[in-house]
Amino acid sequence: METCKTEVKGGKNLLTWLREKGHLLYSPCGGKGVCGKCRVRVLEGKKTLSEPYPNLRSITLDEWKAGWRLACKTMMDEELTIEVPDSWNTEANILTNGDYEVTLQPCIKKVFLKLPKPSIADQASDVDRLQKALGTLEILDLALVQSLSDILKDNEYKVTAVMQGNTLIGIEGGDTRDQLYGVAVDIGTTTIVGTLIDLNTGDEIGVYSTLNPQKAYGDDVISRISHTIEKEDGLQSLQHILLDGLNKMFAFFEEQYHISAGNIYHLNVAGNTVMIHIMAGLPVKNIALTPFNPVTTRLPDIRAKELALKIHPNAAITSLPMISGYIGSDTVGCILATDMLEEPGYSLLVDIGTNGEIVLGNKNGLLSCATAAGPALEGAHIQCGLGGIRGAINKIEISESGVSHTTIGDQPAIGICGSGIVDAVAQMLDRGLIDPYGRMLSHEQASENLPSSLASRVREYNGKPSLIITEEQEGAAKEIFITQKDIREIQLAKAAIAVGIQILMQEMQVEFKDIEKVYLAGGFGNYINHDHAMEIGLLPVECRGKVITIGNAALTGAKMAIKSAGFMEAAERIPSKTGYIELSTRVDFQDLFVDNMEFKSE
Amino acid sequence: METCKTEVKGGKNLLTWLREKGHLLYSPCGGKGVCGKCRVRVLEGKKTLSEPYPNLRSITLDEWKAGWRLACKTMMDEELTIEVPDSWNTEANILTNGDYEVTLQPCIKKVFLKLPKPSIADQASDVDRLQKALGTLEILDLALVQSLSDILKDNEYKVTAVMQGNTLIGIEGGDTRDQLYGVAVDIGTTTIVGTLIDLNTGDEIGVYSTLNPQKAYGDDVISRISHTIEKEDGLQSLQHILLDGLNKMFAFFEEQYHISAGNIYHLNVAGNTVMIHIMAGLPVKNIALTPFNPVTTRLPDIRAKELALKIHPNAAITSLPMISGYIGSDTVGCILATDMLEEPGYSLLVDIGTNGEIVLGNKNGLLSCATAAGPALEGAHIQCGLGGIRGAINKIEISESGVSHTTIGDQPAIGICGSGIVDAVAQMLDRGLIDPYGRMLSHEQASENLPSSLASRVREYNGKPSLIITEEQEGAAKEIFITQKDIREIQLAKAAIAVGIQILMQEMQVEFKDIEKVYLAGGFGNYINHDHAMEIGLLPVECRGKVITIGNAALTGAKMAIKSAGFMEAAERIPSKTGYIELSTRVDFQDLFVDNMEFKSE
Repeated sequence: METCKTEVKGGKNLLTWLREKGHLLYSPCGGKGVCGKCRVRVLEGKKTLSEPYPNLRSITLDEWKAGWRLACKTMMDEELTIEVPDSWNTEANILTNGDYEVTLQPCIKKVFLKLPKPSIADQASDVDRLQKALGTLEILDLALVQSLSDILKDNEYKVTAVMQGNTLIGIEGGDTRDQLYGVAVDIGTTTIVGTLIDLNTGDEIGVYSTLNPQKAYGDDVISRISHTIEKEDGLQSLQHILLDGLNKMFAFFEEQYHISAGNIYHLNVAGNTVMIHIMAGLPVKNIALTPFNPVTTRLPDIRAKELALKIHPNAAITSLPMISGYIGSDTVGCILATDMLEEPGYSLLVDIGTNGEIVLGNKNGLLSCATAAGPALEGAHIQCGLGGIRGAINKIEISESGVSHTTIGDQPAIGICGSGIVDAVAQMLDRGLIDPYGRMLSHEQASENLPSSLASRVREYNGKPSLIITEEQEGAAKEIFITQKDIREIQLAKAAIAVGIQILMQEMQVEFKDIEKVYLAGGFGNYINHDHAMEIGLLPVECRGKVITIGNAALTGAKMAIKSAGFMEAAERIPSKTGYIELSTRVDFQDLFVDNMEFKSE
Repeated sequence: METCKTEVKGGKNLLTWLREKGHLLYSPCGGKGVCGKCRVRVLEGKKTLSEPYPNLRSITLDEWKAGWRLACKTMMDEELTIEVPDSWNTEANILTNGDYEVTLQPCIKKVFLKLPKPSIADQASDVDRLQKALGTLEILDLALVQSLSDILKDNEYKVTAVMQGNTLIGIEGGDTRDQLYGVAVDIGTTTIVGTLIDLNTGDEIGVYSTLNPQKAYGDDVISRISHTIEKEDGLQSLQHILLDGLNKMFAFFEEQYHISAGNIYHLNVAGNTVMIHIMAGLPVKNIALTPFNPVTTRLPDIRAKELALKIHPNAAITSLPMISGYIGSDTVGCILATDMLEEPGYSLLVDIGTNGEIVLGNKNGLLSCATAAGPALEGAHIQCGLGGIRGAINKIEISESGVSHTTIGDQPAIGICGSGIVDAVAQMLDRGLIDPYGRMLSHEQASENLPSSLASRVREYNGKPSLIITEEQEGAAKEIFITQKDIREIQLAKAAIAVGIQILMQEMQVEFKDIEKVYLAGGFGNYINHDHAMEIGLLPVECRGKVITIGNAALTGAKMAIKSAGFMEAAERIPSKTGYIELSTRVDFQDLFVDNMEFKSE
C-alpha cells in the first residue's frame, strides 16, 4: 500500500487523473460508478470525506466512513491524500519502467493553413495551393477533392488540413486543431474496452466497456466461426453487430465527454485474429480448419466510411498486426506494452483467456504458441462457475477451521469466478482434499483425515465428491460447491498452459533460471493469487517473485500505438520477430499434456 | 503520294494494320465504314480489286473501279500494293521520327502465380503467401482482401495477379494473362474518340468515336459550366451523361472485338480541364469565373467502380495532367506526342478548336496560352457553317472562271465546314473580293473590278454583301454563301490565335527564324489548306514549310502513356516545365488583337 497526494483539478475525476499519472486502472464499466473496480481510500480531504453515503453496492457504509470512494466518481476539487491499492502499484511499477513513456507523435495530425487566395497572378489549382503549403501531398480520395473548392472558398482559404503522414484525409473550415481525437480499443471475444484519447495532449479522456454483442452467437471464437460457415450472411451479421457495438461506444463518448465523433480520426484495434477478421468482413472459416491460416495478418488501408463507423468518414481504421490465426493483435499489443523485445534477459508472457497465448523470448526474438485452455478459468464449464461479475466468489480461504470467501461487490455469493476457483483448488490440494492426481477425498476419507469443519463440507454430487464453499445458511444466494469434474476441468486448463510454456522453453533452449520476468496479462491474470496459481501448476513455481501483472496490456499496446507512430512502427516489426509454433500437431504434445495433468508438489 | 506493300494477315483489316505501322489515321466512325475518312487506293491486289461495288456513299463507282477502298473494310487476305494519301504521310513522317516509338511497358501488368498451398508447416496468411510470391505488395482495398481466400482456394492457389506497380488491383482464378486491355480516350467538348489497346502487344484493336452526349447541354465549355451552376444537380447530370457515353464505348468494344470489358484495367483520358473535372465530378464553376482556377491539375487515385464505369471495378482511371483551367490534358497529350520538350530548336504547337491552345518552347521549357478563338473555325456562328460532317463543303476554289468546291462524302452541299471557310476567305482576299480590313466588295464594286463569273455571285444579304458558293441549280441542297459577318467572325478567330502566338514569342524572346517546327493539332488542323491559313493570318506566313499536322495528338499522347509507364511519367513532368500566360488580363492584349484583325499582305 502506497499513499499519494493529488493535485487540485476542479471538475476532473480522480480516475482520469490517476490514469494520466500512469496507474493502469481496470474500469470495466467505463467510469460509470457501477463496477466498483476503481475503489480507492481517501486518507485526507475534508470535503470528500464529509460527503454523505450515496448507498453504493460496491462500497459498504462502514467502508465509506473509513474513506473508501470510487475514483471515477471522486472530483478533484481539493488536494487529497489517497492510498493506492497494491494491485495498482504493480502496474504502476511497470508503467514507470519507462517503456510506457510515450512521446506524443500520433499518426494523425492537424495543420492550420491560411492559403493565399487565387488571383490572376496566381491561378494555381486548389490542390496545388494546398500542396504548396503542405509539401508533398497525396489526397486520400476523389470525394475529398470534390469537396475541396467549396470548403476553401466558403472559409476564405483558412482551413485545417487533417493529415495522416503525407496524405490529406480531411479538410475543415477554420481552425479546428483543438478537436483531434483517437480511440484505442481491445475487441475481446467476450468484452470490448475502448479508450478515447485526445491526440493533442495524449490525455485519456474516457473509457467505455461493454460485452461483445456477438456473444449472442456463441461464447468462443469457434462458435462464431461456425456461425459464419452455417449461415449465408453469417459473417456479415457478426460484422454488423460488432460495428454497431463500436458505434454505440462512439455515441457514448460523444455524449459523455462532449466531443463530436466526427473529430475522431483514428481507431486502432487490438483483438484476436478472428475478431479482427470479422470486424473487417474477412472470411474466418479457414481459421477453424487445418492448417488454420488466416486471410491476412495485416489489415489493408481501411477508412471509417467503408465500415459505416460513425466517426470521421476518412478516419484510419487500423489494427496492430497479427501473427497467426490464433495469435492476434491483442498479443502483439501485450508484447508492445512490455519490454520483452528490448531486454537481453528472457521474458515469458502468459495471456489467459478462452485460449491461452504464450510468448517467450528476449531482444533476439520471440516464440509464441496458443493453447486451448478452455473457458474453465473464465468460470465456464465449472458447475457453479461465473465470469468476474458482482456476487462471484473471487477469493477463497480454506483453513483448519473451515472455508471463508469474499465476493465481488460484497454481494451474497451466486457463483465462483476464475480467481476463486484457483484459490479453492490450490488450498484443497494443500489441505489434502485432493491428491496429486486430482482425485478428491470422499466424505468418508475426509472424515478420517481432516477436521470436521472441512470434512462436513465434502458431500456427494452426481456420485462423486464435491466441496461446499458456501450455502444459503451462510448468507449465500444459493449453495456453491466445487465438483470432481470442476477439478478435472482445471487440470485440463492448467496442463494446456503448462505444456505451452514447456514447449516454448524447450524450443528456445531456455531454462527457468534464464527467465527474468513473467508477464501475466488479461483481466484474469490481474486478479488471481499468484502463489495459488503456482501451487496448482498453472504457472511454474520457478516463476515465483518474477510475476508482473499487466492488466489489459492489449489495450495498452493499442493506446501506445495510437499516441505514437513510433510505437505503431515498432508493432509492425513484432510479427517478423515472433515465431509461432502449432502445438496441435506436435508429436510430443499429448505426452507432455498427460504429464502435466498431475498436481506436482514443490 | 507514296506506295506501300502490305503483308498477308488473314482476317485483319487494313486500317488496323496501317495504324500498327505508325500511320496516324483519323477514323471518326470507329471503323464502321461510315465516315469514309480511311479511303485508300489499292494499286495491286487481285481479289480486292475484283470485289463488286457495295454502293458506298463515300466512294463513287468510278473511284471504286480506280481501286479506291475503305481501309477499315479491306481485309488483308492477300498482298496489296496501296497508295498512302499525302496527309497520312505527313503523320507517318512524325511517327517515324522515333518519338512515337513506344517500348511496351504498361502501368498494368499481370503475373501468373502457382502459390504453395497452406499446410501445418506453412500457416502463412493468404496475403503473406501473395506477398512472398510478388515481393513488396500493397493491396488496393479491403474488398479485394475480402475476396482473396475464396479465389485462392477455389483455384487451387493458381491465380493471376493484376498489378499496378506494387499494388494488387485484382486477383483472378487461373491464368488470365492473355486478357489485358486498356483504353485511351480523348474527351473533347464535341466528340469522344477512344482506342482499345491490347496491353500485351500494344496493338490498337479498335477505335470508337461518338458525339459528346453533353452537347445537349450546350456546344461550348462555358455553357456546360453554366449548367452546373444553374441546376442543383447539374454537375452530376453532366457527369453521368458523360460516363454513360464511356460505358457505351466499352459495350461497343465488347461486342465488336469479342473481349470482356472486365478485362479492361486502365482508362487513360486526355481532355480539356472542364471535361476532365466533369468526368471526375469535380466542380467547374471556378473555371468560368476570374481568376479561373481549377480544383486540381492532377486527378487523385480513381477506380472504375467509383465512377460506375463498366470495366474492371478496380481499373485505374487516369488523366494526363492538366496545366490550368484552360490548358487541359489534351494539350499535355499533344506535347507528349511531339518532341517539343526534347529538341534544342523551338517548336510551336497550335490546337485550334472552340478555344485555341498555343504552346511555344524547346527542351528548356514551354510557355502556353489559351485564346477564345470562338467556334467559327468549327463552322458555328457562320451563316452556312457546319461541323465536318457529310455534305459539308470542305474545299473551295475561287478562280477567274468562278467558284468550285468539294463536299465531305461527295454529297450535295448542305453547308461549309472550317477548312472550306478558310479556303473561301483566303481566295476572296486573293481575288480582291475582300480588302485588307475585311470589308467585302459590294455587287457594284465587284462588277467593276472582277470577271462576271465572280461578280454575279456577290449578292446582298441583310444589307451587306455576301458571296454565293453554290446553290440549288448547281446541285447543292440549298444556297450556300459567305456573309460579311462570317468574314468578321473569321477575323476575330484568327486574330485571337495570332495574338496568342505573338505574345508567347514576345515572352520567350523567340523570333520566327528560331521556330523549327509548327505542329498543327486537332481535326481542323488536319484538313485545312496550310497556305490558305497563312494567307488569312491564322498561321504566320513565316511558318511556311514548317507545318506538321499531327491529327488527334491528344489521343496519341493518351495512347502513348497507357502503353508505357515511362511516357506516363514524362507526361507528369510536362506541367512543371510548361508556364501559362493568362491573355485576358494583359494590357497589351486589346491593342495586339485589333492590330491582328487586319488581313496582312505578304
